[in-house]
Amino acid sequence: MTKQSKTQPRTVAQKLIEAHLVSGKMKPGEEIGLRIDQTLTQDATGTLVMLELEAMGLDQAKTELSAQYVDHNLLQVDSRNPDDHLFLKSACEKFGIWFSPPGSGVSHAVHMERFGKPGKTLLGSDSHTCAAGSMGMLAMGAGGLAVAMAICGEPFYLNMPKVMGVKLTGKLPDWVSAKDVVLEMLRRHDVKGGAGKIIEYYGPGLKHLSAMDRHVIANMGQEMGHTATVFPADDAVRDFLKQQHRKDDFERLEADEGATYDEHEEIDLSKLEPLIALPSSPGKVVPVREVAGEPIYQAYIGSSANPGLRDFVVPAMMVKDRQVHEGVSFDINPTSRQVLENLSKSGYLMDLLSAGARLHQTGCNGCIGMGQAPATDQISLRTVPRNFPGRSGTEEDKVCLCSPETATASALTGVITDPRDLDMAYPAFNERKTFYVEDRNILPPAKHPELSVVQKGPNISTLPLFDGLPDELTAPVLLKVGDNISTDEILPAGSKILPFRSNIPAISEFTYTRVDASYPERAKKYQEQGSVIVGGDNYGQGSSREHAALAPRYLGVRVVVAKSYSRIHWQNLCNFGILPLRFAKADDLDRIEQGDELTFADLAQTLVSGGKITAKSNRGGAFEFTHDLSERQIKMILKGGLLNMMRESLAA
Amino acid sequence: MTKQSKTQPRTVAQKLIEAHLVSGKMKPGEEIGLRIDQTLTQDATGTLVMLELEAMGLDQAKTELSAQYVDHNLLQVDSRNPDDHLFLKSACEKFGIWFSPPGSGVSHAVHMERFGKPGKTLLGSDSHTCAAGSMGMLAMGAGGLAVAMAICGEPFYLNMPKVMGVKLTGKLPDWVSAKDVVLEMLRRHDVKGGAGKIIEYYGPGLKHLSAMDRHVIANMGQEMGHTATVFPADDAVRDFLKQQHRKDDFERLEADEGATYDEHEEIDLSKLEPLIALPSSPGKVVPVREVAGEPIYQAYIGSSANPGLRDFVVPAMMVKDRQVHEGVSFDINPTSRQVLENLSKSGYLMDLLSAGARLHQTGCNGCIGMGQAPATDQISLRTVPRNFPGRSGTEEDKVCLCSPETATASALTGVITDPRDLDMAYPAFNERKTFYVEDRNILPPAKHPELSVVQKGPNISTLPLFDGLPDELTAPVLLKVGDNISTDEILPAGSKILPFRSNIPAISEFTYTRVDASYPERAKKYQEQGSVIVGGDNYGQGSSREHAALAPRYLGVRVVVAKSYSRIHWQNLCNFGILPLRFAKADDLDRIEQGDELTFADLAQTLVSGGKITAKSNRGGAFEFTHDLSERQIKMILKGGLLNMMRESLAA
Repeated sequence: MTKQSKTQPRTVAQKLIEAHLVSGKMKPGEEIGLRIDQTLTQDATGTLVMLELEAMGLDQAKTELSAQYVDHNLLQVDSRNPDDHLFLKSACEKFGIWFSPPGSGVSHAVHMERFGKPGKTLLGSDSHTCAAGSMGMLAMGAGGLAVAMAICGEPFYLNMPKVMGVKLTGKLPDWVSAKDVVLEMLRRHDVKGGAGKIIEYYGPGLKHLSAMDRHVIANMGQEMGHTATVFPADDAVRDFLKQQHRKDDFERLEADEGATYDEHEEIDLSKLEPLIALPSSPGKVVPVREVAGEPIYQAYIGSSANPGLRDFVVPAMMVKDRQVHEGVSFDINPTSRQVLENLSKSGYLMDLLSAGARLHQTGCNGCIGMGQAPATDQISLRTVPRNFPGRSGTEEDKVCLCSPETATASALTGVITDPRDLDMAYPAFNERKTFYVEDRNILPPAKHPELSVVQKGPNISTLPLFDGLPDELTAPVLLKVGDNISTDEILPAGSKILPFRSNIPAISEFTYTRVDASYPERAKKYQEQGSVIVGGDNYGQGSSREHAALAPRYLGVRVVVAKSYSRIHWQNLCNFGILPLRFAKADDLDRIEQGDELTFADLAQTLVSGGKITAKSNRGGAFEFTHDLSERQIKMILKGGLLNMMRESLAA
Repeated sequence: MTKQSKTQPRTVAQKLIEAHLVSGKMKPGEEIGLRIDQTLTQDATGTLVMLELEAMGLDQAKTELSAQYVDHNLLQVDSRNPDDHLFLKSACEKFGIWFSPPGSGVSHAVHMERFGKPGKTLLGSDSHTCAAGSMGMLAMGAGGLAVAMAICGEPFYLNMPKVMGVKLTGKLPDWVSAKDVVLEMLRRHDVKGGAGKIIEYYGPGLKHLSAMDRHVIANMGQEMGHTATVFPADDAVRDFLKQQHRKDDFERLEADEGATYDEHEEIDLSKLEPLIALPSSPGKVVPVREVAGEPIYQAYIGSSANPGLRDFVVPAMMVKDRQVHEGVSFDINPTSRQVLENLSKSGYLMDLLSAGARLHQTGCNGCIGMGQAPATDQISLRTVPRNFPGRSGTEEDKVCLCSPETATASALTGVITDPRDLDMAYPAFNERKTFYVEDRNILPPAKHPELSVVQKGPNISTLPLFDGLPDELTAPVLLKVGDNISTDEILPAGSKILPFRSNIPAISEFTYTRVDASYPERAKKYQEQGSVIVGGDNYGQGSSREHAALAPRYLGVRVVVAKSYSRIHWQNLCNFGILPLRFAKADDLDRIEQGDELTFADLAQTLVSGGKITAKSNRGGAFEFTHDLSERQIKMILKGGLLNMMRESLAA
């Protein structure tokens, strides 16, 4: 890669990065800064982004396009969700941001339908923002603060990823669909196989995958911990944009002939079979046939991981003139207003309803624990991207991830069923080229932003200010956790907790409570002195929610020590002034216990000078740590986080 | 009425009562026992009913038809709702009860569509059960325990009501619909004007009201505190049953010529105008034009108070090719699967969606605070039957009740709007005689009930046992409240509380917390000794939920003293062993204070002997009380409630 020049053949990922590079070199592992063309925020993370924009004194968004979606907190069991919706709408009017109101759909699908453009960068405060890689964009999830910075015109910084090329050959057999392709990737690479990589799909197999099929694959690439997934902008993307009445937004973007990848992978689509991820990890993938016959409680169709019209129409065709098994809750969650309208217009909605489906409002819903929780200890088959423990809302859940075909086949029989075992012809659905395009219910930036007044409900509070990192730190290890700790475990989502997302003191009370209910109380005793968390591999995987860094910081966490980090959470830790260190010797993890007290001497100085970071334990012995921080990140942590840094810079 | 004989002309109400009378005389105010043909339970009250059936050792339901609906607790943010659904389904299999799963719709609409029969009695553990009076049934709401007794084949006891005849003349003008008729009744009679009465509609105006229009009027009759509303079973009911493919279920039932009523009322339909009930009482009715121009946050279409296809189609026709105001949340809550299917099939759903509507799952939803809460201090226009304070889920709510026409007109303009002021022709919608009839997703009684196993999730606990009323009682007045206290204030509904409905100790923690957050803690100190609540007029209006009696009893309440009671709650108090007394002198209410201690001597003996019930206050002075209890009810209260009585009787 270092020898890459303009005349050398380039991959799609390389072209996208090169076109947006504002700092750094395209050498894997080195920090680069990228210009961001578009941003996406959703309501669970967006309220905080808007508070940040307000705190930094932004006038109007400096991106080509920024869009705010309301798709997560739609239950509205009290005034907090609707107060937030009004706040977001008013903030969008003030800052020149598109506003997608409740009912318009899940951000990823709607962004692709209305705004996605080949060749552009997209940064979103939602980990599945990567879905837009389906249409030749470099689309990445990030913490809300990084997105706020992008809206302010700042570059997005990341370590230059490697590019893994995945060559697709052949054609998917009947009953096997895009979800099975990404489940196959997860079967091979598990939940951290994508770390530090852009996954780029290419090859002759692509021509059988529509843009929305590619969305499925790009979206769930996130579960491998990738930086992004990219697909070329080819005829399939052109057809999609034409269907969306946006053919002028098409620009062809394909890898040059002879372009090479840092890593290689190949999938013969014709050899795939229906796959399923078992409870409770997206990486626990087996063929459906191996677990067939287990009784199920629920079959759940929808979410950003199967957002396309075909993902609802194929189930509708499968259940037409049939009925789902009487014991099964067959939940239909339309991804976008457009999908719901087309289902309704085409009559497929009727097929679903009369087969016994339960139709839910358009949005993220049960995918993030906002409703449709399964019964205790009962199996739920879902087309959603994630099945982390408890994410469904049910503590003792058994959520499996699969294709719409597998979920629907199982809904018909009442047990986990390989759809190939149904006595049924595979429904042939060709998305019509002209379908109903919904575009008038998303509100454009206000014509007179100066007239807008930001509406803050009683549950929206200003952000707390944090100190910079001290030079001397003596702090207890208040929690030691294992490998693959997800942000759902650090700060759970769900209907009880997310409504407090703009109220940091309140939301902090839920920090790590799924792992240790006593943690918030214990941590608050060291809120001034500071405390340490010790983790294992792939610390902070999953959702990008920055509250998983902000809440621990509010409770006094100053340092996290782990074997390795998931990228987005690692960035969030830096952004909010928590120092993420790695053990210099992995074995040291075993020598450190919860309750130990660590003393870091000359911490700030050592970070700046680049010396060895060490800590002494109160039980004797010392530890050596490393980190992957850039100079910019070190400066930020010393100042107590990015917000402090930007506030100073804008005030200057 | 006392002189009524078979040869005298009779009203519909009299015919229904006479045909089902098993004890007592048809003299207003005297207790009568009625044979119950059908029962209806919903999930919020039904879990307890099923636990009661189990506790009483029932084999199979002894009614002609019993149906259990799942329509209230559909959010499923954790395992409790779905665990309850499984419990209810399994209990229905065991006891021979029809089961309507989540997604099939609101009990009242579905019962009318699938099961309602002219000439029958229906008892339901939901206060709006009265809606089925639309089709010549005597349909009444009651506490769950009374419904459990009816399922066990026991009669339902009530005081013989007076019959108020309401003569309808003329025809509704354009833009005025059934909701305005019942709002006019509420404007005239307020929230307790129906107490002790059956409201029977008759007259030439009836022929312009469909069976579903009558459902609107019968349903919301409950807000006047009536015993029931009845309509004749005439051609409109015949047409409805024919449309539902149930023409054989029709039986004509009309008042005899010359029948007379205890009270008289007349409404000239042609003189009505659009009406609206202002926050926060269904009785606070004014013409829409008087409050026109106020900005609104939400327009909400649906619920059992506007359940018919026309209640959704008229809004759809109004918004076709238009868009709702960008500030308005236009929430569509289909009442039943049938309505949703017909909306979808006919294309009207598309008109709603593309105008910006948010489509919610079929069920009660926001009507009972299960989602769609409005933003703080913002006006919400709803077609639901109730707007008690906080019932929407938002503490500081401003909910107004109106017709679908008024709500939709206001959604279009963004301000409260008299629909006659729109520059629009009134949509002419004639419900087609053949429309899609949904009937296969409601499960009939199991063929082999002996094989069914009741499934109890971790949140379903057996019922606590209560002591009988003591002969000597010295107890503090722990709470004194005002007039028109609703069961929503005694034990709030909403998504935080209802999930505990089968867990009495847990749900008791919410008792009266909306009035006084310290109440449960204070009451628990007197759980053994007993305590007293003092209320004003119309105590316990609103929802029939028996937890509003059960939870106070669990906390130790032995006696309630009030000026007057709402009927259903009064029965619930008796059923769970709480003695409901009335002040002999209404002025005495002012002499009693929260914190006073009352001593009742020879309480049980006096109740049995029929002597004067008195209590001495620790602050000096004494009070005299009366009651309306029958001998049967006195026996029941002395034994600690109906469940104790039945358990003994079945064990004998």
